[in-house]
Amino acid sequence: MKLPEAVIAALEDAVGAEHVVRDARALDEAGTATFATRQRIPAIVRPASCDEVQRIVRVCNEHRIPLYPTSAGRNWGYGSRVPARDGSVLLDLRRLNRILEFDERLAHVTIEPGVTFQQLYEFLRDRKSALMPTSIGGSPLASIVGNVLERGDGPGPYGDRSSHVCNMEVILPDGRCIHTGFGRFDGAKAGAIYRHGVGPALDGIFLQSNLGIITKLTLWLSPRPSYFATFTFTFDDDAALPSVVEALRNLKMALPRTSLSLANDYKMMASTQQYPWADAGGRRPLPAALLEAFRARVGVGPWAGSGAIYAASREQGHAERRLVEKALRGRARRLIFLDDRVDRLLRLVPSRLMRLGGIDLGPHLDLMFRKSPLLGFPTEVSIRSTYWRKTAPPSPRLHPDLDRCGVLWCTPAVPFTGEDVRAAVDVVREFCLERGFEPNLALLFMSERFVSFCAAILFDRDAEGEDERALACHDAILEALIGKGYLPFRLGIQSMRFVPPPSDDSASVFASLKHALDPNDILAPGRYDFR
Amino acid sequence: MKLPEAVIAALEDAVGAEHVVRDARALDEAGTATFATRQRIPAIVRPASCDEVQRIVRVCNEHRIPLYPTSAGRNWGYGSRVPARDGSVLLDLRRLNRILEFDERLAHVTIEPGVTFQQLYEFLRDRKSALMPTSIGGSPLASIVGNVLERGDGPGPYGDRSSHVCNMEVILPDGRCIHTGFGRFDGAKAGAIYRHGVGPALDGIFLQSNLGIITKLTLWLSPRPSYFATFTFTFDDDAALPSVVEALRNLKMALPRTSLSLANDYKMMASTQQYPWADAGGRRPLPAALLEAFRARVGVGPWAGSGAIYAASREQGHAERRLVEKALRGRARRLIFLDDRVDRLLRLVPSRLMRLGGIDLGPHLDLMFRKSPLLGFPTEVSIRSTYWRKTAPPSPRLHPDLDRCGVLWCTPAVPFTGEDVRAAVDVVREFCLERGFEPNLALLFMSERFVSFCAAILFDRDAEGEDERALACHDAILEALIGKGYLPFRLGIQSMRFVPPPSDDSASVFASLKHALDPNDILAPGRYDFR
Repeated sequence: MKLPEAVIAALEDAVGAEHVVRDARALDEAGTATFATRQRIPAIVRPASCDEVQRIVRVCNEHRIPLYPTSAGRNWGYGSRVPARDGSVLLDLRRLNRILEFDERLAHVTIEPGVTFQQLYEFLRDRKSALMPTSIGGSPLASIVGNVLERGDGPGPYGDRSSHVCNMEVILPDGRCIHTGFGRFDGAKAGAIYRHGVGPALDGIFLQSNLGIITKLTLWLSPRPSYFATFTFTFDDDAALPSVVEALRNLKMALPRTSLSLANDYKMMASTQQYPWADAGGRRPLPAALLEAFRARVGVGPWAGSGAIYAASREQGHAERRLVEKALRGRARRLIFLDDRVDRLLRLVPSRLMRLGGIDLGPHLDLMFRKSPLLGFPTEVSIRSTYWRKTAPPSPRLHPDLDRCGVLWCTPAVPFTGEDVRAAVDVVREFCLERGFEPNLALLFMSERFVSFCAAILFDRDAEGEDERALACHDAILEALIGKGYLPFRLGIQSMRFVPPPSDDSASVFASLKHALDPNDILAPGRYDFR
Repeated sequence: MKLPEAVIAALEDAVGAEHVVRDARALDEAGTATFATRQRIPAIVRPASCDEVQRIVRVCNEHRIPLYPTSAGRNWGYGSRVPARDGSVLLDLRRLNRILEFDERLAHVTIEPGVTFQQLYEFLRDRKSALMPTSIGGSPLASIVGNVLERGDGPGPYGDRSSHVCNMEVILPDGRCIHTGFGRFDGAKAGAIYRHGVGPALDGIFLQSNLGIITKLTLWLSPRPSYFATFTFTFDDDAALPSVVEALRNLKMALPRTSLSLANDYKMMASTQQYPWADAGGRRPLPAALLEAFRARVGVGPWAGSGAIYAASREQGHAERRLVEKALRGRARRLIFLDDRVDRLLRLVPSRLMRLGGIDLGPHLDLMFRKSPLLGFPTEVSIRSTYWRKTAPPSPRLHPDLDRCGVLWCTPAVPFTGEDVRAAVDVVREFCLERGFEPNLALLFMSERFVSFCAAILFDRDAEGEDERALACHDAILEALIGKGYLPFRLGIQSMRFVPPPSDDSASVFASLKHALDPNDILAPGRYDFR
């Protein structure tokens, strides 16, 4: 797989020779994800400006070379940096890493694709800003723009991240450059503060899409709450799941800014430790007795809930707390709230007493309140959990791709009802256990109507045959979920082909749009491409 | 202006002869707005189904006839039903007036374009639903879908109406039919509850657009709050406007679900009475002394604020009330809250005592709380105010088009800061007063960052020369606002041409999209058409 010399020369001309990478090892690493991939990458191009991106796009058009943009390249479990199609040049946007504008009063920041969650967190911290970012389930070194474009979500009031951005700068695959909303007019004052602009709004067509390369956008930030409290709870009977979900939906309808989620026991276990290979005597999936022992040790049932209250005063926060208590009364046990007062008290407790089921809570206390991801703090917890099935402990570099951690996501769109959640959970559980994997489940109640249902298949890519078995399990789950009407709301490069044909003219219309903006079909072929 | 006989025959074949209207009076009425228009309409076609719409579109494509869709045709002040371009066949969608699906638990309703605000209100009332619609500033007989497609807004938690819809059925101008989001897949369960679907989201390109005809969509409904309170306040010094706006922004950042707006004295006066022609001795704009007399009589300053708290419990509502009080302390006077308890008390007061500045509050009490538009109740107040400059009282039919009420809107997108609001207000005030109109201003604080700035020029179309003077004033205001960076976020057929050319490739990209979906350029030419 080689690029014609003329293409190399043109790319080098566009960005400088040192930013066209053809080193075999680098290409190999870039082609490595958390599951088996076969795509080969002929070169990585690393522009430093919007102008350089435009030049690259023109080169690729002229020579009909497929080009696959990535931001920080940390789309773990969905394909990392690996292009959806073999032979694509990788457009690495990490050098576009500036925070271009910041408005504390109107609470927004304009960023390039290379800006990471960690970087924005530090930027706001250094300025002692009263604003908070929305954290990510994945790596703190992931790109915010990249996550937005995947419609990634997070906890807190602006958790539906892609609904809190505007003012995109887009390089179209044919080389044109546009700005969405009012951003297209010089001197317009509402570019960063109003999503819709005037006339048709184009932002939506660039999300989960291969229609444009976003070189900057404005992200809205939420004010830090005056009163913040996290809470956790659990319940013992899996059969109660539907009624708990119904109660949580009614709660979310009443308090839409409240963060709410459920995780199952497997997920909790994988968040706190690695697979107990010795105790399991090498068997998998996890023997029931070991799961029960974990539950008993930390005092949880098959499901644990967590959430946060974001209030503008202590009084308002306490009122909301009582609504949370009321919603869960008789349905959950061990509902525990952590706010500034409890946090201060806990810090007086001698550290040897701060233990729960053998786990030292001391180091977790920050994570549970002061530096909670629910408050926008970056955390590596979920990256660590990708090492669940590994036999060695996580490496200090925490790099699931290179450490051959196996991760595959299945993310069906599930209506926020007890029966829908039940049905989707049962599918994942049945298929996983049957095929030797733990059903690792997080249910994020992202809106009053929608459950961001995240099932992870975690495995060890170094274990013989696991790549194939895990992918087969992933495929079976997706097919079964789609068969029941639960279509995926986010796709990895491994699952693009699962989207069924539409029952209307959508495929033909997607084709018209693609042709209008990318006549030579060079941009990210195969990525969210439903022609 | 005649259609070829073959076109008439084909249209009659598509919808039935009785639904192709060519009666001169009907065409003339359809061509009448609240300002001078010259567009002629050769025929009105009235389909009853999506299938009939598709047939009409095909006829228009075959014969290259421009087709202009309207829903209820009540886009008053923006052109009513009048097509943006002369010679367009009017596609009247009023017969598509079904409420197709309703889900009380997940709080949504699927509606056709002919469904009015009044109709949905009655539908929910008849079912004793715990959900509320979001009301409209305009007519209760306006179309919800039409208002969504204009990005119209309203009070309450779902006030940004177009952000609370999904699952659109769209007939493209070339005859294809698509469904947005998950709606394109048979049997998908998340069609009505998740906006984005999977892959590129197309909804945005059909708002303020001429790229498709929406024949149905799903509208989300907000649960009625457990505790509801309205409030009003005023302040005396116009110079305090920026500091009040800053305080309101901080409040909205803290309590984003709280409804907040400001209206100026002219607007308040026009909402409660007609122009005092006799007292003014025929002079206009309104003599300062008469405005001051109005203020003194009702006890308000140059600005009055109003808003509402939507809470999930009385306790939470009271906490929010204290935050409102705190925000306005020292900045506003006569901050009055009305909740269920005050409402009950007021109903015990003898009606002869329920007067404020000569106005009998009795009939207003419902409007102020129990049946407040802030709670989704339809109201005719703002239609009545379109008769402000008329010399006769409003007709019982309340039809500004046919009663020759003059209305022109100027709606710039203004950032939610004191200095931006000040600058925009000053432009409107200066130009209006100079040209003999009252600066009628409502500032709706729709989000934490954006002010929906609504300036109405109200006039009497029967007064000699007013049509021309009012339009010239509207044009001058828009130009001045755009010059200062405040671009309009909504346009009437009279103002489409004011949008300046973009400073990037957007015009060319809009052209590509239009060509991809409407190759014969038949759909609503001139409407939000920024090629």
